[in-house]
Amino acid sequence: MQARSITMLGTGLIGDFYTMTLHGQRGRDAVRVVYSRSAERGAAFRERWSVPESTTDLEAAVRHPETDVVVVGVPNFMHEEAVSIAADAGKAILCTKPLGRTAEEARRMLDTVERAGVFAGYLEDLCYTPKTLKAIRSVEAGAIGDVTWVRSRETHPGPHSAWFWDGRLTGGGAIIDLGCHCIEIIRNFVGKGNRPVDVLCHTDTLVHPIADEDNAVALIRFESGAIGQFEVSWTFRGGMDLRDEVAGTHGTIWLNHFLRTGFEMFTAGGGEGYVAEKAETAAGWLFPVGDEVSELGYVDMFTDMFGALDEGRQPRETFYDGYVVNSIMDACYRSAKSRVWEPVDLDWRGGVTPRIGIVAETYEGHTVIKREVLPDGRQKLILKDAQTGDFVDRIVARG
Amino acid sequence: MQARSITMLGTGLIGDFYTMTLHGQRGRDAVRVVYSRSAERGAAFRERWSVPESTTDLEAAVRHPETDVVVVGVPNFMHEEAVSIAADAGKAILCTKPLGRTAEEARRMLDTVERAGVFAGYLEDLCYTPKTLKAIRSVEAGAIGDVTWVRSRETHPGPHSAWFWDGRLTGGGAIIDLGCHCIEIIRNFVGKGNRPVDVLCHTDTLVHPIADEDNAVALIRFESGAIGQFEVSWTFRGGMDLRDEVAGTHGTIWLNHFLRTGFEMFTAGGGEGYVAEKAETAAGWLFPVGDEVSELGYVDMFTDMFGALDEGRQPRETFYDGYVVNSIMDACYRSAKSRVWEPVDLDWRGGVTPRIGIVAETYEGHTVIKREVLPDGRQKLILKDAQTGDFVDRIVARG
Amino acid sequence: MQARSITMLGTGLIGDFYTMTLHGQRGRDAVRVVYSRSAERGAAFRERWSVPESTTDLEAAVRHPETDVVVVGVPNFMHEEAVSIAADAGKAILCTKPLGRTAEEARRMLDTVERAGVFAGYLEDLCYTPKTLKAIRSVEAGAIGDVTWVRSRETHPGPHSAWFWDGRLTGGGAIIDLGCHCIEIIRNFVGKGNRPVDVLCHTDTLVHPIADEDNAVALIRFESGAIGQFEVSWTFRGGMDLRDEVAGTHGTIWLNHFLRTGFEMFTAGGGEGYVAEKAETAAGWLFPVGDEVSELGYVDMFTDMFGALDEGRQPRETFYDGYVVNSIMDACYRSAKSRVWEPVDLDWRGGVTPRIGIVAETYEGHTVIKREVLPDGRQKLILKDAQTGDFVDRIVARG
Amino acid sequence: MQARSITMLGTGLIGDFYTMTLHGQRGRDAVRVVYSRSAERGAAFRERWSVPESTTDLEAAVRHPETDVVVVGVPNFMHEEAVSIAADAGKAILCTKPLGRTAEEARRMLDTVERAGVFAGYLEDLCYTPKTLKAIRSVEAGAIGDVTWVRSRETHPGPHSAWFWDGRLTGGGAIIDLGCHCIEIIRNFVGKGNRPVDVLCHTDTLVHPIADEDNAVALIRFESGAIGQFEVSWTFRGGMDLRDEVAGTHGTIWLNHFLRTGFEMFTAGGGEGYVAEKAETAAGWLFPVGDEVSELGYVDMFTDMFGALDEGRQPRETFYDGYVVNSIMDACYRSAKSRVWEPVDLDWRGGVTPRIGIVAETYEGHTVIKREVLPDGRQKLILKDAQTGDFVDRIVARG
Repeated sequence: MQARSITMLGTGLIGDFYTMTLHGQRGRDAVRVVYSRSAERGAAFRERWSVPESTTDLEAAVRHPETDVVVVGVPNFMHEEAVSIAADAGKAILCTKPLGRTAEEARRMLDTVERAGVFAGYLEDLCYTPKTLKAIRSVEAGAIGDVTWVRSRETHPGPHSAWFWDGRLTGGGAIIDLGCHCIEIIRNFVGKGNRPVDVLCHTDTLVHPIADEDNAVALIRFESGAIGQFEVSWTFRGGMDLRDEVAGTHGTIWLNHFLRTGFEMFTAGGGEGYVAEKAETAAGWLFPVGDEVSELGYVDMFTDMFGALDEGRQPRETFYDGYVVNSIMDACYRSAKSRVWEPVDLDWRGGVTPRIGIVAETYEGHTVIKREVLPDGRQKLILKDAQTGDFVDRIVARG
Repeated sequence: MQARSITMLGTGLIGDFYTMTLHGQRGRDAVRVVYSRSAERGAAFRERWSVPESTTDLEAAVRHPETDVVVVGVPNFMHEEAVSIAADAGKAILCTKPLGRTAEEARRMLDTVERAGVFAGYLEDLCYTPKTLKAIRSVEAGAIGDVTWVRSRETHPGPHSAWFWDGRLTGGGAIIDLGCHCIEIIRNFVGKGNRPVDVLCHTDTLVHPIADEDNAVALIRFESGAIGQFEVSWTFRGGMDLRDEVAGTHGTIWLNHFLRTGFEMFTAGGGEGYVAEKAETAAGWLFPVGDEVSELGYVDMFTDMFGALDEGRQPRETFYDGYVVNSIMDACYRSAKSRVWEPVDLDWRGGVTPRIGIVAETYEGHTVIKREVLPDGRQKLILKDAQTGDFVDRIVARG
Repeated sequence: MQARSITMLGTGLIGDFYTMTLHGQRGRDAVRVVYSRSAERGAAFRERWSVPESTTDLEAAVRHPETDVVVVGVPNFMHEEAVSIAADAGKAILCTKPLGRTAEEARRMLDTVERAGVFAGYLEDLCYTPKTLKAIRSVEAGAIGDVTWVRSRETHPGPHSAWFWDGRLTGGGAIIDLGCHCIEIIRNFVGKGNRPVDVLCHTDTLVHPIADEDNAVALIRFESGAIGQFEVSWTFRGGMDLRDEVAGTHGTIWLNHFLRTGFEMFTAGGGEGYVAEKAETAAGWLFPVGDEVSELGYVDMFTDMFGALDEGRQPRETFYDGYVVNSIMDACYRSAKSRVWEPVDLDWRGGVTPRIGIVAETYEGHTVIKREVLPDGRQKLILKDAQTGDFVDRIVARG
Repeated sequence: MQARSITMLGTGLIGDFYTMTLHGQRGRDAVRVVYSRSAERGAAFRERWSVPESTTDLEAAVRHPETDVVVVGVPNFMHEEAVSIAADAGKAILCTKPLGRTAEEARRMLDTVERAGVFAGYLEDLCYTPKTLKAIRSVEAGAIGDVTWVRSRETHPGPHSAWFWDGRLTGGGAIIDLGCHCIEIIRNFVGKGNRPVDVLCHTDTLVHPIADEDNAVALIRFESGAIGQFEVSWTFRGGMDLRDEVAGTHGTIWLNHFLRTGFEMFTAGGGEGYVAEKAETAAGWLFPVGDEVSELGYVDMFTDMFGALDEGRQPRETFYDGYVVNSIMDACYRSAKSRVWEPVDLDWRGGVTPRIGIVAETYEGHTVIKREVLPDGRQKLILKDAQTGDFVDRIVARG
């Protein structure tokens, strides 16, 4: 493993989380220089995380002679510019989510890094939570059979920074902010080679006085027949709700990343400072998580990114994945307006996935619909009569 | 309270649950006669529940001189006939869910009982679970503000009886079986006077070799802007998953009716018989519920029905509600085919519901997007500049 | 089933819960007259629950010509007098927990009803919660093997009524109030015929300015070797914590009766009234239960009591059980002072229970300590060498 | 931060967990040489974790010229020897739990490292789980007031290695294996300066054919009046149950480290290999954790240890702590035999802790027992009359 020296672009919440991770535990990597649009915030960040230098000059930060990796943590509207400069500088680039404000923008960024031949990773932390990684391995090992449905939910009461609320700068509302996580989680569970075919999305602005959506629900239909379903909201009350559910033909997975993780605290108040990201109350029943940067995937994410860089392989999450996510979000926004299923327009590199298979068992020429074991050990078969189409029960000896 | 003498139509799982409830605890009501299409099943039922008489004559059962209430628990395709006879006999009628196989059928049944002037209740048990009733009261008392979204999920590995699998007899697949519950739960939370405007539904048949859907997801848009979302499946693994989630502008409600209710058991096997409805395993970690007929709403349902009958009022769940549910399911099936949002065609009796209101606060002429309390007690306002449309932070003194 | 007409003694919280249960759902039994020490509270109760009469004359209430059952819900120090009068009147008697303030008092009450030959039931509701009843059935069916340990925990922030705090009137503090529940729950799980041998108890008064204990922990050793452990507190923060855990040689049971039962609500406040018994907050995350009188066992308790009365059998919980509980509590108080294990002094009617059995398997003459299945299907045996006493691993072929 | 080169002693489960942690993520530290009593296991370990060298020569491993830290992960009976050699070599020493088989042994080890002046850390991982660390910070910040009671529970079906079952090699049974964790967790919550005064312990051997205890429950009384309670078992069924509960005068904390952490999976079987440490089943409902080495505290433990070494400070867990734990376990074993509270014999370095304080509020000269807010905003006071000692209710105007 090679120690990495990093240019950090951005000093907001995400820059804090990234640097807390990189400088945490016994890590070998370190932020060498940080860029902020504000000299003040840059200096505070430098102090906060013991970073040697800060600057308000983006170009200088990226081209800093001692760094080999550039982490893009600036607001969405600056991603493309930052990536361009970093690619031109020939450095490894790690870009936060979402990759672009639109698929078109994401596509240009993908082209940029591919043309430059630089390493590029997509910082989609929630695909790297330890629970998610282990669950994906279980799915890949066949523990739940074929995946039929994935629900990914990410909701909280709304972002902390002003620019997040400005669709011109971000590309949209809750979908752009939160839906990008959900979509990529879903893709990891249904299989990245499983083409997203079309999308149905409903959006609304129910609580906040803004032009973009503060609530959205969407269905994504994949080539295998699997359905991805995401729910995002900036109006959830009670903290930050991050849950995933996966249904398969032979099993089920439920993940709760934040509000119910085995840490429950009641306090009459008076003691605590920070409880957890997006926590709404400091008294009553609280549900902190243990180690946020681990539970939210940041630790495993950087391990994969730098490991890939060391080993000359692709990371789990690439700029192409970011582009696919943007393409699906574009289709969501189109569908929310057209109110029909919209195709996902996409330069697809993933191949073909067969339909989830139904293999009908037969019994004396009739289709077996279901087998149930009776208390006495015999089996009840529900059969569909091949001639009449009628459904009948049949009790048979054991197995 | 007047003790009721009941004609029970049907001896399947639902007849068992109903009679277990009626004959349970210190109840004053009793099944006097039971009708079954099979003399054998009728006799077994009579024995099982100490019912004085059984018959295979539907008309005779309904017109039994000593009963005043007819409970319709026969398969869906027989509901209309049973209701007609009972209405003609002038008896109070309680009909299991779904009311009809289609809205048209349900409408005819509604007309029948209204014409006959008999008492008619819709046996939608899951709207009567103690948790649901208490949650609805909380919502009505304003505990979570305006309801913006309701998720109702009902999934299991598939029905136990052959006729359930035959769409000709039932009217469809998992939607007809399970979606009817979800829809009415959703209506109770968004308000029964809140008109269901249109519906988007996706269905698929992924596991069982049948013609009807074994999986479906739907969105229901209500007049207020609230969204109801249901997920139904006959392919869920792990038992019976009955969960509801309600989001409001000021709060959140999560209900789990079956798999996680505070009863957890691990057994190495060898001991137990019945664990719970639709349980898949008899060893390992099991999640029974305490008192199924109470937790699933049967007890409170019959209390409301007979209380309404005693007091000459409408029950909480009426044939009109059953008709609304069928109308929404019809729209779901149309949408699953057309793949667009389909209007809910309905003879609406519920009035008009205003849109969920956004009341934008202003600060020095700018729109306040969000207020956050800082650790030092000051407040951070996120403002939208009235002129430029830009979003900015502003720190102000406390409160 | 015979409808019962009841004399209710007492108008406090417990009188309310009992009457709410008796008059709830479709019950056939009714309170005919209520006794209160205060005419005002009696009148309010009469109004609240539609009871025909109230009186401040205990004797008159008990001897009311139209009642056949007397429910004793007055404070502990009045139990003996009430039971004496009711026994003398020849009526069925149901007495709330604890039976007496001491085993001596309980013993006299037991003698009184046995001498009078009247029906007597011990109203220990928490042994009748639907979860507890089902769990006991599972244990009796062998689902978890031999019970080795039971933890019963009942804690809350302290009683609502003044007399509860006065040890002269109640017999003690948190043990008398809450420990009686735990002890009888434990007995139900280890088996009522399993003699409680001795007790170790620690008590303290940590928060409230009272003379009696506001916290206690105790261990009860049963003849089989099983250990019962109870934790009671009047200083718990966060609501009412009612949990039981049962460990067996082949399984485990965890019951949560109140704070985590599948009903979770976040409210920003402003809406709700009553949340749940002993709830501490009306905003933030709240955990109501569905139907308190069902979940806390009142419904099944009265069904058993009146069923026993109808059928001429003993109820599940008798005055003898109440006497055993008092005997164990007496031993707890002695142990808290002496700081040694104190024997449970008891007129034992329960027979003899064998020690939990260890049947050691042998392999080639050595004792098998453990078998583990390896990933390749072979088994690893941990053996204790018969000669040397050394422990060694041995890998063997499958099965 | 200085990169550390490590001598690892031991190749069992604990050696694996330690090395997985050290070599995991982007860590800068590495195992340079591993010692095993078996050349074969040493070679396999070397291979498994890419360790440059293995040896069966303990002395050579410890004195390896390129290592500066020795991690003692050999069986208990070898701790003292290993520590002696390492101290003599002047290296930093990290020793796994329990420190010694007895307090006497632990004391000698403490003296050894203090005499040698080497850095010494006690590898008590469960005091370092992210949840535990955050909970301790909350307690220290006053979030739950004064701690009155801590329950720590650690149970599973029994160890995997033969030597663990041999009390001659380990010092005892489940207490030595698991109780050491619980005791130190309890000390962290009640405060390390809070002297453990005396101990009451019950042990039994209920399931396994061994001479040492397979079940134990103990109470530890601290100088403040706080009670620590631990439950350990080698006969638990259902996996590994690691839970802590902390009660304070103003709050409550519940931690679940293993079986309920927001990861739930049902599988019909056929897919998975390793589920989790001590998991009993590979099908049905399973409860894996995300990242075991993080959730079980190994990551934060080594960060603290090496951080302390870098900074010249003591780690959170020292050999003195290990000695205190052994002293408490010794008292437990004495109490299990004597059946009385046994004093904890200890060379105490921790100072004096005041008793948890009761500050009684008065109202018109009477002691206030409790305040409750009524629905109308008035307050109900429960008062103890200063003269009569009677308890009375008093309704007063708001606050």
